[in-house]
Amino acid sequence: MTKKSLPLSRVYGLLEPGPVVLITTTGKRWPDIMAQSWHTMLEFEPPLVGCVISNRNHSFELLKASGECVINIPTVEIAPQVVACGNASGAKINKFERFGLTPQPAARVGAPLIAECFANLECRVVDTGMVSKYCLFVLEVIKAWTDPAAKNPRTIHHCGRGNFMVAGERIKLKSKAK
Amino acid sequence: MTKKSLPLSRVYGLLEPGPVVLITTTGKRWPDIMAQSWHTMLEFEPPLVGCVISNRNHSFELLKASGECVINIPTVEIAPQVVACGNASGAKINKFERFGLTPQPAARVGAPLIAECFANLECRVVDTGMVSKYCLFVLEVIKAWTDPAAKNPRTIHHCGRGNFMVAGERIKLKSKAK
Repeated sequence: MTKKSLPLSRVYGLLEPGPVVLITTTGKRWPDIMAQSWHTMLEFEPPLVGCVISNRNHSFELLKASGECVINIPTVEIAPQVVACGNASGAKINKFERFGLTPQPAARVGAPLIAECFANLECRVVDTGMVSKYCLFVLEVIKAWTDPAAKNPRTIHHCGRGNFMVAGERIKLKSKAK
Repeated sequence: MTKKSLPLSRVYGLLEPGPVVLITTTGKRWPDIMAQSWHTMLEFEPPLVGCVISNRNHSFELLKASGECVINIPTVEIAPQVVACGNASGAKINKFERFGLTPQPAARVGAPLIAECFANLECRVVDTGMVSKYCLFVLEVIKAWTDPAAKNPRTIHHCGRGNFMVAGERIKLKSKAK
């Protein structure tokens, strides 16, 4: 798929619904991929995202060291790979190679985009003040990409222990909300 | 509906999928209700939730003053009331009365449960260190209730500007994740 640049003002609409994401970071031997659901928007523009990366994960040290990552948003079509990424450690294997995912160069950060994801958000760490207490990194999205063909992406949402809800019906209501 | 107590260890499974929630707080004249999507789990147990409440919202001052709230999780059946809560200010109206929602007494906090929501999480504010910078309150869930009849609740997930995704199909994959 060919991705197009997404205005940063529209990034919140991708993360606010709460999808499982795949966070990529650069490593010494290979890039890492981490499956993650504990994230929240903190600001619309520039888009700030609060992201919990446990210090038990290999990605924690990589993110601390590089100060950069990509938030990739998968759909149900690659749910098996998402779970496989969550079940393995990037300290031992190259998850891109092992799980047949395709790294693509990002525009603004060293971490790769995952080609198979419909959206990719290039981020830099802007605040580590909550890392020691909550493993919460504040990320600023500095470049965003989406697949223009993905109209109602079937994102996956983790309900615990491998149970996922897949994005269903869309409705529109008359809201004053941004 | 009659709610049952939910073990605190299972709370994350309700919020991790990223539903729109209704946060109730106590006020001088009446309780307030705020529609909200910017939240993330921060810890499994005791369950800690990071919750962004803008200081432009009436609920911000009420939450700061009382140090307590309830996170209520609605389903698509009451989506019109959810949007109505988001479009109005509790400084001017009693949203429970105006929108036909039913307050019920909580067990551990002063803020009311919303009877029409399938889950209700009684919370106290445990950390305000990120409020000045990000309007981010850290809440500890101290008591949780769910409707045992709500097996696959059709939660709503905000994609921006009144566009919502409704929870769809459920799948289970072999995951090591909690």
